[in-house]
Amino acid sequence: MASTEQFEDHCWKDIMPAADVKLYSCYARRTYVGPRPALLAIDLYNLVYRGGPQSPYELDPVHPNSCGYFAHRAIEPTKRLLASARRAGIPIFYCTQETRPNNRPQAAVSTRRQGMALPSENDDYGIYHEFTPQPTDIVIRKQRASVFNGTPIFSHLTTLGVNSLIVCGESTSGCVRASSVDAYSAGFHVSLVEECTFDRSELIHKVNLFDLHHKYVDVMHVDEVVAHLDDLASARPDAMSARVAAE
Amino acid sequence: MASTEQFEDHCWKDIMPAADVKLYSCYARRTYVGPRPALLAIDLYNLVYRGGPQSPYELDPVHPNSCGYFAHRAIEPTKRLLASARRAGIPIFYCTQETRPNNRPQAAVSTRRQGMALPSENDDYGIYHEFTPQPTDIVIRKQRASVFNGTPIFSHLTTLGVNSLIVCGESTSGCVRASSVDAYSAGFHVSLVEECTFDRSELIHKVNLFDLHHKYVDVMHVDEVVAHLDDLASARPDAMSARVAAE
Amino acid sequence: MASTEQFEDHCWKDIMPAADVKLYSCYARRTYVGPRPALLAIDLYNLVYRGGPQSPYELDPVHPNSCGYFAHRAIEPTKRLLASARRAGIPIFYCTQETRPNNRPQAAVSTRRQGMALPSENDDYGIYHEFTPQPTDIVIRKQRASVFNGTPIFSHLTTLGVNSLIVCGESTSGCVRASSVDAYSAGFHVSLVEECTFDRSELIHKVNLFDLHHKYVDVMHVDEVVAHLDDLASARPDAMSARVAAE
Amino acid sequence: MASTEQFEDHCWKDIMPAADVKLYSCYARRTYVGPRPALLAIDLYNLVYRGGPQSPYELDPVHPNSCGYFAHRAIEPTKRLLASARRAGIPIFYCTQETRPNNRPQAAVSTRRQGMALPSENDDYGIYHEFTPQPTDIVIRKQRASVFNGTPIFSHLTTLGVNSLIVCGESTSGCVRASSVDAYSAGFHVSLVEECTFDRSELIHKVNLFDLHHKYVDVMHVDEVVAHLDDLASARPDAMSARVAAE
Repeated sequence: MASTEQFEDHCWKDIMPAADVKLYSCYARRTYVGPRPALLAIDLYNLVYRGGPQSPYELDPVHPNSCGYFAHRAIEPTKRLLASARRAGIPIFYCTQETRPNNRPQAAVSTRRQGMALPSENDDYGIYHEFTPQPTDIVIRKQRASVFNGTPIFSHLTTLGVNSLIVCGESTSGCVRASSVDAYSAGFHVSLVEECTFDRSELIHKVNLFDLHHKYVDVMHVDEVVAHLDDLASARPDAMSARVAAE
Repeated sequence: MASTEQFEDHCWKDIMPAADVKLYSCYARRTYVGPRPALLAIDLYNLVYRGGPQSPYELDPVHPNSCGYFAHRAIEPTKRLLASARRAGIPIFYCTQETRPNNRPQAAVSTRRQGMALPSENDDYGIYHEFTPQPTDIVIRKQRASVFNGTPIFSHLTTLGVNSLIVCGESTSGCVRASSVDAYSAGFHVSLVEECTFDRSELIHKVNLFDLHHKYVDVMHVDEVVAHLDDLASARPDAMSARVAAE
Repeated sequence: MASTEQFEDHCWKDIMPAADVKLYSCYARRTYVGPRPALLAIDLYNLVYRGGPQSPYELDPVHPNSCGYFAHRAIEPTKRLLASARRAGIPIFYCTQETRPNNRPQAAVSTRRQGMALPSENDDYGIYHEFTPQPTDIVIRKQRASVFNGTPIFSHLTTLGVNSLIVCGESTSGCVRASSVDAYSAGFHVSLVEECTFDRSELIHKVNLFDLHHKYVDVMHVDEVVAHLDDLASARPDAMSARVAAE
Repeated sequence: MASTEQFEDHCWKDIMPAADVKLYSCYARRTYVGPRPALLAIDLYNLVYRGGPQSPYELDPVHPNSCGYFAHRAIEPTKRLLASARRAGIPIFYCTQETRPNNRPQAAVSTRRQGMALPSENDDYGIYHEFTPQPTDIVIRKQRASVFNGTPIFSHLTTLGVNSLIVCGESTSGCVRASSVDAYSAGFHVSLVEECTFDRSELIHKVNLFDLHHKYVDVMHVDEVVAHLDDLASARPDAMSARVAAE
């Protein structure tokens, strides 16, 4: 939770011109995690960690999908976020590319990137080992940028009584943006966790985060979101009975 | 293609009261296969053929999902339909249940049938051996009755320039009906092939076919549809050069 | 709320063969109104009440859309249902046809009925005077059978935190069926109120109600649903303070 | 139509760092207008032209939604584009806000802008007088950023056999971006006309246009698109008979 005064306390401060920030002041508001949340971890697959914590500009010739340094510096905060979501007992969704045979026509792909083969069943699109899904988690397989496009996630969220999303992952300008806009437009309150969200280019990451924060979602710091989830964890019936038993 | 006068020449003749047929005469029209068609074969999975060509009433205690006799008598016409679609070179879609681990929450199922486990990775939901998909076919995995619900098929059809559907499979009152209504409401012309469509109960099959034919789709006989597809096959550029070469 | 033993205590008893009822016994279950409900009143527009409480067979030549007697006998139970929903303070949605100029291409219509002009801005598609919407109700304008097809209702339900629907209106085999299947498949628990739901043909009404009840929704009696809504009304904070003040 | 070499010949040249352009070179390709196109003119309503061709920074205190100079300089190219689309006889769609009473709950709005009343039936959301829709055009009323969210446009496009979109309007970072991503992900080829697309901030306009061009759409110059539409106009049967008659 952050106050209206803290609305611009985010990573885009060093690149957004003051005149644009002023033009967008009509969007300033308090930010928060909404009621009945689920966690959505977008595209944390092996391909974006390839080559290690280097600059994506340097990795590009060999690992053209890697977010390099930006992916790797998000690993620790993302582990904290996932752990706190598990303690709070909220539903956890992952998404990655659909790789099964016969799943789509050639042209049905996420972006117009050239020279890419259709995603196939190697480990490129497996979830990175630091974030392995648990048996009760749900893994959405998608073909387009947004996790809502051509997938059953909408009906899952309704089935589970979810009304808000906590979002992390990549890329800010691609799948995170498309999914976040769809989630907001579908009626969900969305909290996007700044330290757990990344892209290949800092400029594009920051301008998109600025856009999303003002128009559609609450960009929040991982400390704020983890604190909120820890409050939810404390309020769970089993947590309470555990405390009573301990007394 | 059938004329307005032939509009009621279908299997429901023996059960629909004359007064209801008259009430529905406002829907009578010429029927046809629409432009740029694709074939959609719904839920031709092993489970509905179990126990062989017996009455579903008799099979029910042991094979509660089997369409028995109704499934087996549709095998030959469905093979003819698939073969003519392949000769015509139109896109071919199958659908069946999603069975992958971590694919959904417990309550996200096709119907409210009691005592069913979630579909899992045995051969229950594999496509029946008489209709094995080819490498260029697309197999949609779904969790609900309609093939359009929570799947990417809509974007596939647009990507491929498809504007009409030829539909077959089961069950008439369940997945075929839900998919056909969605297809019509999404702007596609739909031709439903009578001899290749089935259910577990004749009464329910026929009343649903009557409903669908009048309100949403053209119920057509397999001979009409195969004849149309054979015309498309003859008009293919490669068919023409084959004929020229043979002359 | 009705027990599993009462699952077949509905209007279709006189037409469904015993063998089919037995075949569908796998769907028998307790029925109920789900958590956080909204009321959805489908297509209660003037056109279906035209000609008064006569047989639709007789009205057909002059009022081809009228449900006549079936529409009129549902008026009183539907008024009871709406009144109890208002007392309970749950969100209330209506739907009717979109009639604004420039709203669609010629062929984008609900069904393939022949010789109908596109819905226009006369009073045919106004809500019937017995059910006039209140300023806080939402009226969805649709072009197809299902209230979910091409409308924003899904995002409204999420925005309002709704997880269940209580459905009434017409026609059972058309817009009610399409909307109910979509609602179930979207993850909502659906309760369809038998006495407030109608069609032009009794056979088609009953077979569709049977289908819907078993596969997708809880067909319930108006007394059960009103009793549940009255319980919700009693539990409202303002109801409690009103009682306290009166003591 | 522009070659792969011309892929970066666009307005973002002065602000995108060379390293980022290089990182995105994997998206470079030939651009074009796709088969069976329709024109989609997004949010050309009165509110964004208010205050005349001034800087949005200056207009902001009095006309907080105006795109000022950017909106006004797009008027002439947009008139050219619309005129050529009419000559070519392709379907023309507009969209604007839904303003009818009872159309939505309070929180169902396009963006999280603060202090805005729900759109109402004054002339704020009427189409600007330079672009008045014709009787055969379709005007989509929407509640969210994307013209695809909660509207029937998808079924209209399928009904009309449309497979590609030519897009113009505003704002680049809001409704144009959300609609373009949805259109691409739905299987349509999208051509976004640079001179007819605008926003309130140049930086945000250019970064979003860069993003969209690489990942999802072909950003094209108005001269290219008008030339293509003029070719379509020349190929129309009536154009040919007009030429024959003139000879």
